[in-house]
Amino acid sequence: MIRTAVIGCGYWGPNLIRNLYDEPRAQVRYVCDINRERLEAIGRRYPTVKIVGDEHDVIGDRDVDAVFVATPVETHYRIASAALKAGKHVLIEKPLTDSSAAAQKLIALAKKHKRVLMVDHTFLFTSAVQKMKEIVSLGELGEVYYIDSVRVNLGLFQHDINVVWDLGPHDISIANYVLGQTPRRVSAVGASHVSQRTQDVAYVTLYYPGQLLGHFHVNWLAPVKVRQMLIGGSKKMLLWNDIEPSEKIKVYDTGVTVRHRPDGRPDKGEIYKTLIQYRTGDMYAPRLENVEALSRVVSHFLDCVETGQQPLSDGEHGLQVIRVLEAADSSMKLHGEPVSL
Amino acid sequence: MIRTAVIGCGYWGPNLIRNLYDEPRAQVRYVCDINRERLEAIGRRYPTVKIVGDEHDVIGDRDVDAVFVATPVETHYRIASAALKAGKHVLIEKPLTDSSAAAQKLIALAKKHKRVLMVDHTFLFTSAVQKMKEIVSLGELGEVYYIDSVRVNLGLFQHDINVVWDLGPHDISIANYVLGQTPRRVSAVGASHVSQRTQDVAYVTLYYPGQLLGHFHVNWLAPVKVRQMLIGGSKKMLLWNDIEPSEKIKVYDTGVTVRHRPDGRPDKGEIYKTLIQYRTGDMYAPRLENVEALSRVVSHFLDCVETGQQPLSDGEHGLQVIRVLEAADSSMKLHGEPVSL
Amino acid sequence: MIRTAVIGCGYWGPNLIRNLYDEPRAQVRYVCDINRERLEAIGRRYPTVKIVGDEHDVIGDRDVDAVFVATPVETHYRIASAALKAGKHVLIEKPLTDSSAAAQKLIALAKKHKRVLMVDHTFLFTSAVQKMKEIVSLGELGEVYYIDSVRVNLGLFQHDINVVWDLGPHDISIANYVLGQTPRRVSAVGASHVSQRTQDVAYVTLYYPGQLLGHFHVNWLAPVKVRQMLIGGSKKMLLWNDIEPSEKIKVYDTGVTVRHRPDGRPDKGEIYKTLIQYRTGDMYAPRLENVEALSRVVSHFLDCVETGQQPLSDGEHGLQVIRVLEAADSSMKLHGEPVSL
Amino acid sequence: MIRTAVIGCGYWGPNLIRNLYDEPRAQVRYVCDINRERLEAIGRRYPTVKIVGDEHDVIGDRDVDAVFVATPVETHYRIASAALKAGKHVLIEKPLTDSSAAAQKLIALAKKHKRVLMVDHTFLFTSAVQKMKEIVSLGELGEVYYIDSVRVNLGLFQHDINVVWDLGPHDISIANYVLGQTPRRVSAVGASHVSQRTQDVAYVTLYYPGQLLGHFHVNWLAPVKVRQMLIGGSKKMLLWNDIEPSEKIKVYDTGVTVRHRPDGRPDKGEIYKTLIQYRTGDMYAPRLENVEALSRVVSHFLDCVETGQQPLSDGEHGLQVIRVLEAADSSMKLHGEPVSL
Repeated sequence: MIRTAVIGCGYWGPNLIRNLYDEPRAQVRYVCDINRERLEAIGRRYPTVKIVGDEHDVIGDRDVDAVFVATPVETHYRIASAALKAGKHVLIEKPLTDSSAAAQKLIALAKKHKRVLMVDHTFLFTSAVQKMKEIVSLGELGEVYYIDSVRVNLGLFQHDINVVWDLGPHDISIANYVLGQTPRRVSAVGASHVSQRTQDVAYVTLYYPGQLLGHFHVNWLAPVKVRQMLIGGSKKMLLWNDIEPSEKIKVYDTGVTVRHRPDGRPDKGEIYKTLIQYRTGDMYAPRLENVEALSRVVSHFLDCVETGQQPLSDGEHGLQVIRVLEAADSSMKLHGEPVSL
Repeated sequence: MIRTAVIGCGYWGPNLIRNLYDEPRAQVRYVCDINRERLEAIGRRYPTVKIVGDEHDVIGDRDVDAVFVATPVETHYRIASAALKAGKHVLIEKPLTDSSAAAQKLIALAKKHKRVLMVDHTFLFTSAVQKMKEIVSLGELGEVYYIDSVRVNLGLFQHDINVVWDLGPHDISIANYVLGQTPRRVSAVGASHVSQRTQDVAYVTLYYPGQLLGHFHVNWLAPVKVRQMLIGGSKKMLLWNDIEPSEKIKVYDTGVTVRHRPDGRPDKGEIYKTLIQYRTGDMYAPRLENVEALSRVVSHFLDCVETGQQPLSDGEHGLQVIRVLEAADSSMKLHGEPVSL
Repeated sequence: MIRTAVIGCGYWGPNLIRNLYDEPRAQVRYVCDINRERLEAIGRRYPTVKIVGDEHDVIGDRDVDAVFVATPVETHYRIASAALKAGKHVLIEKPLTDSSAAAQKLIALAKKHKRVLMVDHTFLFTSAVQKMKEIVSLGELGEVYYIDSVRVNLGLFQHDINVVWDLGPHDISIANYVLGQTPRRVSAVGASHVSQRTQDVAYVTLYYPGQLLGHFHVNWLAPVKVRQMLIGGSKKMLLWNDIEPSEKIKVYDTGVTVRHRPDGRPDKGEIYKTLIQYRTGDMYAPRLENVEALSRVVSHFLDCVETGQQPLSDGEHGLQVIRVLEAADSSMKLHGEPVSL
Repeated sequence: MIRTAVIGCGYWGPNLIRNLYDEPRAQVRYVCDINRERLEAIGRRYPTVKIVGDEHDVIGDRDVDAVFVATPVETHYRIASAALKAGKHVLIEKPLTDSSAAAQKLIALAKKHKRVLMVDHTFLFTSAVQKMKEIVSLGELGEVYYIDSVRVNLGLFQHDINVVWDLGPHDISIANYVLGQTPRRVSAVGASHVSQRTQDVAYVTLYYPGQLLGHFHVNWLAPVKVRQMLIGGSKKMLLWNDIEPSEKIKVYDTGVTVRHRPDGRPDKGEIYKTLIQYRTGDMYAPRLENVEALSRVVSHFLDCVETGQQPLSDGEHGLQVIRVLEAADSSMKLHGEPVSL
């Protein structure tokens, strides 16, 4: 039985607690939050859990094996480093920390203390992202050309981070995971309308090796909720619409082929035009298993605690996400000038 | 009766001819194309029109009042300048020319010869864009924050221009018209996958005065056709989905309000958060008249010829579009570095 | 504090329990089910509740004020009548009973013992149905012409009832409530494909007074889930799409007007045609509050227990639904022959 | 060269003329209409065609081989019978006639004079219906359970026919063709709201042999346009959404299987439930060729004229449609009572 504690029970914490309760391998010892009202609501629903207001009560208890950190991002490093030092495994809500320096320290601490450090990039554990990873890995799309995401809605403004730090981690994490690559360069543009210091609309471009482009539109000021990702490839193309109740992923047997001349260069002019061939074929929507991703996150974390294996979304994965976020911030200040990683 | 000629009858020319035939004020004297087969097909359908292979036959005929240029963009300047010099009014398919220098010369020629020079930015004449212009002009959206467009599909590759020059003119023209402004700076990123010299996927950001941002995703390598524009404002927000058979425009009574402290600065931290107010109200979709935009283009051009008024999409409007296209090309070469206009 | 018990914890029971736990006025004393495994799962999540396998333990306890019956429909009468006789208030999952005779007995028992009898027609308490009721009541649609519903999906086959009894109660209840009327005549057609004795596809027509028609397509053999209702009126028309995440209700300022001749009769032939006028105006989607309907059901039931008021979905409302279900069964046997109520 | 004439140039006639002009095998000699204004518009667009106001001018001309009848339905018999008697081939807009008696006479006339009689049931020639026919014929859906259609919009009220006669022919024709069967019994319900004598909302049920059900919702009083057909089968299910610009047809690998006990009867109760198995698999959308169906109609008719082959939508097919329409009228008068064919 893995003895756990959940620190932070704002929006995400209660979901974690519910999933931990459904896991026969885990036991929830503590729930910790500075907000008394929230704590007591948890206490009413889960009478056997200890509710505490001070994280030190949790970290100081040697009978706690693993800690789930679901607090505001600026506290991640403080809480996670203390927990790791106290010999606990740690699962942190995304993003890992508020700086790549802090992220690197956490990675080092986890290594030193031989503890699991995992970031809850929940989307990686959805059936949709798992299916996309499979399709891309098997080469079904051919050479991947671009990955384009739109993630917009009327957003919950956060006082501590901008829209790139709020919504961007999802897309960066998914793109790096599905493509199996990390970007070399980042260009980002953004604007701050509601608050002068915080971008609420932004566009982030990731230059992966070759001509592979990632582009993410993140926006807190959109009237409709859109969660859509396009992946274009040389053989097929894929559309992921996460708002759809079913048929979230559609694979299109669609493409463009350019035939080359004997000397290896494409032709010019009229002749050239005739050498480009379009292909529009069937579309299919693979069946996706209907499982809550967070239950898979919890289960995978417990697996890693038990077996010592490296999590899918380990500290290194979380660090790569933060590097892109930092580069995006720099590029936005320069109106889109590219920043190398 | 305005005596007209159509030069170029590839994709767009036949649509122009059909609309001219429905106009009691106009008569189609000539149709000109270098492709004999296409010409003869036109001749069979419109037996009274003269079909010619050489544009000089048209331009040299003093009984032609107005010329419609629907040829590849690299020929626009040559044909239009000859026509203007011969004293004819000119309507040109978008984009006006392939360089801002050439566009400026055409504007000067039109002025000198006192002839109408109009660019067929057809979208400006759709009921949807007219409604958007009205909504924005009346201040219904409040202060406009951003305009975001996605215009993607499996594209007809063109040997002479990239995807920005092919699809971008629509968005730039619409944005400049609806906002009543022109951008100060352009940042663009793109990639060339199918042909090494031609971007087939691109993202263009327009910095309008203040924090007003325009952003356009244009893409020839998308498996689905998307034609969608979002306009976010301080009071309301608007979504235009041009693929929808009805309810193309939706106006959302949705917004974010930030209240300021007495000293004029927003609060920080927890207090700050409570001062941001979300508003989600009703949505409405205004009725749009179902009229073919090109018939309005033709009618407006004939009005201008008759009255001497300046067209909505005059040479200057067309020139502004080309300036953005040129800046986008420059910025793409610099991986997104902003280019001033 | 109202002391409650939930009998039956298959699909719906756990939702009831969760909502009761969120109600400060109620306390859950017992959860009862014949399935030991399900009971124990409830016990783990709610350690303070008593779990029992025999309904008599619940009904015999004088410290239970109200009973929630969420068992298969053929047991509703047995459990509810015992509970009413024991002086308990009763909330029953829809449909009320499996026969109108049993429903009438329950109504009489509730009256005799002065206890609340409410049917959990949950849909009546959704924001969408409340809004539709408001729109129709205020006369915004004018005279209502028809109400058409499609409620289809790959269904959970039930061994005890057919698709009309499974899905139909929703539509009948909503239609009677929104229209404020009950039908005079029922015609139904159906077919049994998977099991010979159970209709899995059916169409039910309700003849309300005048020319007002209700029509419901209920289907367990559909590949996609559709939950859609159209209400046509003389002034406006309404579309409710319950699958949509937002904009569930759309009101169309659309209609047909027929002008009458001075002698009060419509004209004939060509002249007649010109007197029919179409109107297509704006559409609007009213904002709907995002509240779980079941929490409103529970709250309304507790209100009725406290104040003695008659529930919105009282025994009489539930009885009217069953009368239509019985008539539909009769009509299906006669291949659509109408059955009077 | 087949010399043709088009009689009636209201809504459908001009489409026929346009398609005939694109057919190298056909020549349009005459266009006939009683409305002078419409005739002259045709004359302007097609200066080589003779425009006449009297159908006898057309039928009396021995140099006309084939006549296209696109007039109001009550004139179909008069014009078509005269044309057949004059030795001309005839293509008639659907429905064939306004009574089955008249349809039978036309069939006999065509046989006697050895001329082609074809009904323009255009939908049969769409890529979507052709694909559905192929899928059903190959047994991909298994045993077909039902065919359900919704065909509703704010309709063009017609003074001569009700909504069943206006929209129903499409569905009846498609269902009979795709299923390769004709119904045995019809039940229909309808209501007349705008005009007392004309149903504007109706539901028609077709009982095909066995448990196979067809059901059509036709409606002139709907605020939105819906064109949707579901076909459920024992192996797979199909959805045709004709409003979708692409992916009009989706095939779902979805089904329900019931296993039988050794004695051949399904089990009862709990055990029975476990024997029903659901299958939800992938969905695919076959590519459909983008061809105007009417051009295929015209081409098929010319083929039949040239080769003497029987048209896909011959007089007999058209007659079967009318028989259902007549039965639906009878059943509506009886509030849904079934009528045998």
